[in-house]
Amino acid sequence: MEQYTNRLKEAAGKAAVDDMVKSGMKLGLGTGSTAIHAVRRVGELLTQGLLRDIVAFATSFQTEIECEKLKIPFFTLNSQELTSGLDLTIDGADEVDMQNRLIKGGGGAMLIEKLAAYSSLAYIITVDESKLTEQLGIGFPVPVEVIPAARVQVTRALEKIGAVVILRGAIQKAGPVITEHGNLILDISFGPNKPIDPSFLETELNQIPGVVENGFFTRKPPVVYIARSNGTIETRLTPGL
Amino acid sequence: MEQYTNRLKEAAGKAAVDDMVKSGMKLGLGTGSTAIHAVRRVGELLTQGLLRDIVAFATSFQTEIECEKLKIPFFTLNSQELTSGLDLTIDGADEVDMQNRLIKGGGGAMLIEKLAAYSSLAYIITVDESKLTEQLGIGFPVPVEVIPAARVQVTRALEKIGAVVILRGAIQKAGPVITEHGNLILDISFGPNKPIDPSFLETELNQIPGVVENGFFTRKPPVVYIARSNGTIETRLTPGL
Repeated sequence: MEQYTNRLKEAAGKAAVDDMVKSGMKLGLGTGSTAIHAVRRVGELLTQGLLRDIVAFATSFQTEIECEKLKIPFFTLNSQELTSGLDLTIDGADEVDMQNRLIKGGGGAMLIEKLAAYSSLAYIITVDESKLTEQLGIGFPVPVEVIPAARVQVTRALEKIGAVVILRGAIQKAGPVITEHGNLILDISFGPNKPIDPSFLETELNQIPGVVENGFFTRKPPVVYIARSNGTIETRLTPGL
Repeated sequence: MEQYTNRLKEAAGKAAVDDMVKSGMKLGLGTGSTAIHAVRRVGELLTQGLLRDIVAFATSFQTEIECEKLKIPFFTLNSQELTSGLDLTIDGADEVDMQNRLIKGGGGAMLIEKLAAYSSLAYIITVDESKLTEQLGIGFPVPVEVIPAARVQVTRALEKIGAVVILRGAIQKAGPVITEHGNLILDISFGPNKPIDPSFLETELNQIPGVVENGFFTRKPPVVYIARSNGTIETRLTPGL
């Protein structure tokens, strides 16, 4: 089953790259088990000479390491090469609703993933169909990145708006996960009985002092490549895009 | 002149503490050349036995060091003692407008200063009258704390909304100031010809990926203690408070 899901993820990544990535592009590369397939496809096409002059930006250490392995040249978003932003970012998502609004951050990289997405002209999300949902925030918690000094006060503020809050624990270190920016992650969920407004929450969560960023992505309408379990790839535009 | 201004700052701090701080309070202590006078007055009253059982929170290394010197016991905002938040925070400000909206962050501590302010029941700002302004954002720039990886993209986003952006340089180290959270500070200003909406900007600046916090304080109406150059102290409530 997991192997089959992985094949779906791979199919979505390959389709998105083959459709959308052109030589010379400034390309944001996402993080996680789905996004990695798009990164590998870009590497493959570069090796085969079918793509040239890609200027990449990697959204995490994981993606940087993959780029190094595949010899994809990557730069920081502060570099001259990328000052004017990205042409296209391809990434995965943890949940996608009917309006192509997203929850991201299962891999803890949503801060830089959002920086890449919101600095891009075009944005593509690749998923297998298990990531589709009618309502965000029930099945998959929303990660909220917070500075360590604000942990308890942010938790209180989130509980006040009705969230159940869990400090994300690490496995290969004692205690909590530390993000690539030295922060903590609070995974918050709201339960099925209380419909939430993802666009409103994306803004409001960032108003809590100590919150650096949150995993709602509602402001950059993506094109979503969905790998269906019947083997087809569906391309879903965002309504109104 | 500077000495006289310092006496005004001291008078405002002393008046605020004498009026408002009671034994047993959970007390947020601000940062900077005005707030320090309130910290010292609290220390004095503790030493004299006129105040007891103060549980303090220090908003910066500067304030922590002053508390250590004065033997004011302080705790983190994650500690059991302060889980339920603060009773009162006393701080300074760089600018105060007619509606008691603030610009803070000249000392680079606005992230934790906002955490303290917004976690407090009551909020007091002490200033000398030179800090009063008709319109925020003209005389004093608004500091924006950003993660290093987002420096250039955030600068672009700020310039798009009409701001002039300066990366704050350090003096006792090479290159930029690093905040107590490992971030950079962009000082932004808008010029006199373009009136800005501080409440709107406080929210919107935090929507830019990579922005951790900004120096507009408009959501926690303070009582402002103003030391006038004629030697009087004026107490100004926030309209509608």
